[in-house]
Amino acid sequence: MEGLSLLTDFYELTMMQAYYLTERKSGERQSAAFDMFYRENPDGNGYAIAAGLWQAVEYINGLRFGREDVDYLKSTGAFEDGFLDSLLTFKFTGDVNAIPEGTVVFPNEPLLTVVAPVMEAQLIETALLNIINHQSLIATKAARIAQAASDDVVIEMGLRRAQGPDAGIYGARAAIIGGCAATSNVLAGRMFGVPVRGTHAHSWIMSFDSEIEAFRMYAKIYPDSCMLLADTYDTLKSGVPNAIAVFGEMRGQGFELKNYGIRLDSGDLAYLSKKARRMLDGAGFAEAKISASGDLDEHLITDLKNQGARIDIWGVGTNLITSKNNPAFGGVYKMAAVSNGGKWEPRIKLSENPAKVTNPGRKKIHRIYDGATGKIKADLIALSDESYDNGSDLTIFDPFATWKRMTLEAGSFTLRELLEPVFIGGACVQKKRDVMEIREYSVAERHTLWDEHKRLTNPHPIPVDLSKPLYDLKQRMIASIRA
Amino acid sequence: MEGLSLLTDFYELTMMQAYYLTERKSGERQSAAFDMFYRENPDGNGYAIAAGLWQAVEYINGLRFGREDVDYLKSTGAFEDGFLDSLLTFKFTGDVNAIPEGTVVFPNEPLLTVVAPVMEAQLIETALLNIINHQSLIATKAARIAQAASDDVVIEMGLRRAQGPDAGIYGARAAIIGGCAATSNVLAGRMFGVPVRGTHAHSWIMSFDSEIEAFRMYAKIYPDSCMLLADTYDTLKSGVPNAIAVFGEMRGQGFELKNYGIRLDSGDLAYLSKKARRMLDGAGFAEAKISASGDLDEHLITDLKNQGARIDIWGVGTNLITSKNNPAFGGVYKMAAVSNGGKWEPRIKLSENPAKVTNPGRKKIHRIYDGATGKIKADLIALSDESYDNGSDLTIFDPFATWKRMTLEAGSFTLRELLEPVFIGGACVQKKRDVMEIREYSVAERHTLWDEHKRLTNPHPIPVDLSKPLYDLKQRMIASIRA
Repeated sequence: MEGLSLLTDFYELTMMQAYYLTERKSGERQSAAFDMFYRENPDGNGYAIAAGLWQAVEYINGLRFGREDVDYLKSTGAFEDGFLDSLLTFKFTGDVNAIPEGTVVFPNEPLLTVVAPVMEAQLIETALLNIINHQSLIATKAARIAQAASDDVVIEMGLRRAQGPDAGIYGARAAIIGGCAATSNVLAGRMFGVPVRGTHAHSWIMSFDSEIEAFRMYAKIYPDSCMLLADTYDTLKSGVPNAIAVFGEMRGQGFELKNYGIRLDSGDLAYLSKKARRMLDGAGFAEAKISASGDLDEHLITDLKNQGARIDIWGVGTNLITSKNNPAFGGVYKMAAVSNGGKWEPRIKLSENPAKVTNPGRKKIHRIYDGATGKIKADLIALSDESYDNGSDLTIFDPFATWKRMTLEAGSFTLRELLEPVFIGGACVQKKRDVMEIREYSVAERHTLWDEHKRLTNPHPIPVDLSKPLYDLKQRMIASIRA
Repeated sequence: MEGLSLLTDFYELTMMQAYYLTERKSGERQSAAFDMFYRENPDGNGYAIAAGLWQAVEYINGLRFGREDVDYLKSTGAFEDGFLDSLLTFKFTGDVNAIPEGTVVFPNEPLLTVVAPVMEAQLIETALLNIINHQSLIATKAARIAQAASDDVVIEMGLRRAQGPDAGIYGARAAIIGGCAATSNVLAGRMFGVPVRGTHAHSWIMSFDSEIEAFRMYAKIYPDSCMLLADTYDTLKSGVPNAIAVFGEMRGQGFELKNYGIRLDSGDLAYLSKKARRMLDGAGFAEAKISASGDLDEHLITDLKNQGARIDIWGVGTNLITSKNNPAFGGVYKMAAVSNGGKWEPRIKLSENPAKVTNPGRKKIHRIYDGATGKIKADLIALSDESYDNGSDLTIFDPFATWKRMTLEAGSFTLRELLEPVFIGGACVQKKRDVMEIREYSVAERHTLWDEHKRLTNPHPIPVDLSKPLYDLKQRMIASIRA
């Protein structure tokens, strides 16, 4: 994620120059606070999985404008030399807080906050959104799919249908974070130290004069990972019988069969897997695995399981790597406050749609867990100077229907502050985390939700409330602008 | 597109090793011919726009395995040293033919063919599909949107919602090829020499104490490109009147107003644009442009135009950059023939679904144009050793309903061979084309279609037929395998 300083919308740069010229004239340096948040969970899910933070960190750490960048900007005719020169020494000097990768998150709460000189805070908007929107989208989709597959192994294998190389690479990372066990993407395996998997394609079979020859040769070369693709010509009449014949030959030659089985890539996967299971079992290959692929997603996996499909390993491609039913995570980045030399003033953006009016002021988020079960009860967005503890009763309320309120008794709940420091004064204060560790954390995070919040369709929402001071500030600001 | 040699599915590498070991044993080198094609136009469109070829060329030119790549592969435990050593001197030595970028293409015809030693042809499958699927998807979506917007300016501005950095960068390239006039993506502008555009965001307005102050300062800094965002607080009561006031001040100060106007980013764009147009005209700013954004796609643009919206410039984000209704282009890469020392043998893959049975043999494609109008009549996929000219009558038929046939009279049509050489013996024989030239070509290509093929919903399909020799070969091979 380096060399991406120009990975931004042109208006970020025209605004930066406008801020630069304004500040040069006034002599006053302006700082700004921005919140990144999203308004709806993808696919109507009950939660999202935050992902992409580490690539955002790498992007910010790598922010430098080279001479070539500046020359290019000059060629557009929109920028004056003083501003362009200032870019040559540009670096990020601000603070960033964020919710850790792999955390279960909800609409309207900041996943990331930036407090920085306004030019810096503005520049990074586009790339931060690009990176975090993408990975959170795919991690969330992977969580839905992993959930539908219960404890089975799910393999991400969508690289060929991903929206460009990065979508494949970082999509694989996000898919693992969301719950996949491995990816087919070799570069992602190398970059992130995650497991890679794969055996052969139809072309391997087609390059031989017969299917059984192709199986036999493959088994000879890979006796320890012999998953044979069974559907090139006819799954039940040719593929499965030939695979059984080859497994028999291997056993006859004294191989101890392990990690072996068949892959189904077309046809009715419920019918074929049940038939194939019986054929394999009948021939004495009860440990042979059945792996399946072909337009799988969380709904089809649920259906296949309900119909008794005998599938051990799920290979998921297009629907996961593009989040096909909902290919964009609607993260936005909104100004929350400005400061001209010390004092912070909250800012708000109105909209005809009440849900789109922004929450003003610098914030923090408390996650409230039920003390007895450890499950999430609600998230509470508060102003950054508020503090809460579980020593007194806590009353929270729905900011769009304030009569919906709930009082939590002192001691019955625990609190966790979700936003953690990532950059302080431009210096990164976090260490790179292992992707497989983030995955473990993310799977555990899902267990902080009751089943009703995890339903694939129409889940019960977790309340995301505003504190009384934040709610009151928002109402005052709306009233003052409308007046 | 360099350093991507490991951007592949793991099974491509396990198959490569299997080919390597087979060849080492037999002493025979196998070559293979693969076709890349797709089965359905995205979004139910009547055509697709081929794009991404140049990045595929760069990828192939950059194919080298470094010591680090090989060390990583060794660490997976799946590869033996002889094979890994051979990777260190690997390069692509084969032939690639392809349909030029920007061409109108149809399902089932090869967009690209590869003839190479089987290991090479196999390795490149995943990245070729990734790159060409992505850009063809976005170019096709952009063509639909450009078509819906008639001759208006369409600006691609989806970077923040793109599926990672590359999806934004190469998506912008593809969007321009498909018909967009410019992009907001600065890095894409620098990399591809395409126009970039943008002014300011809501945050610019919110960083001032009042909207009119923000407008005034922006106008002072950018008097020659003063597009003011009018919807931060209230479009008709605040944004448009303030913009008009500032335009008036500028005119009063003697500025010759040009490239100026307002941008609407929320609310009902038909209603607001008509009202705003009247207000601007009434105040003497008839040349002020109205630019609009907010969840636009080809359908909404069509509707807004039908309702008389007064929008001059369309900013399209999420729906374009993700091809939201259909975020994957289903390109596949199938083996068509193999050769063990000289003689080519055709190969076929069966499927229960007749449309998924592959077309065997090495191929070329003739596009048949009506001689009088220059419009496309049909595409004819033929075996590579066939030849056709327009000196005799030509009878073509639907390969799935062979009674649907058409005879074209000698001289009434013209023929064009679509596949052009790109690599010969591993050497690239094409020059890089300017993206804006590809765009012009692509817009002209759309004019080779009648309106009925360009309808956004339920268009009339262009026939893509098989030559008699290819059709007969296919039937013979199916019969022989089923027997």
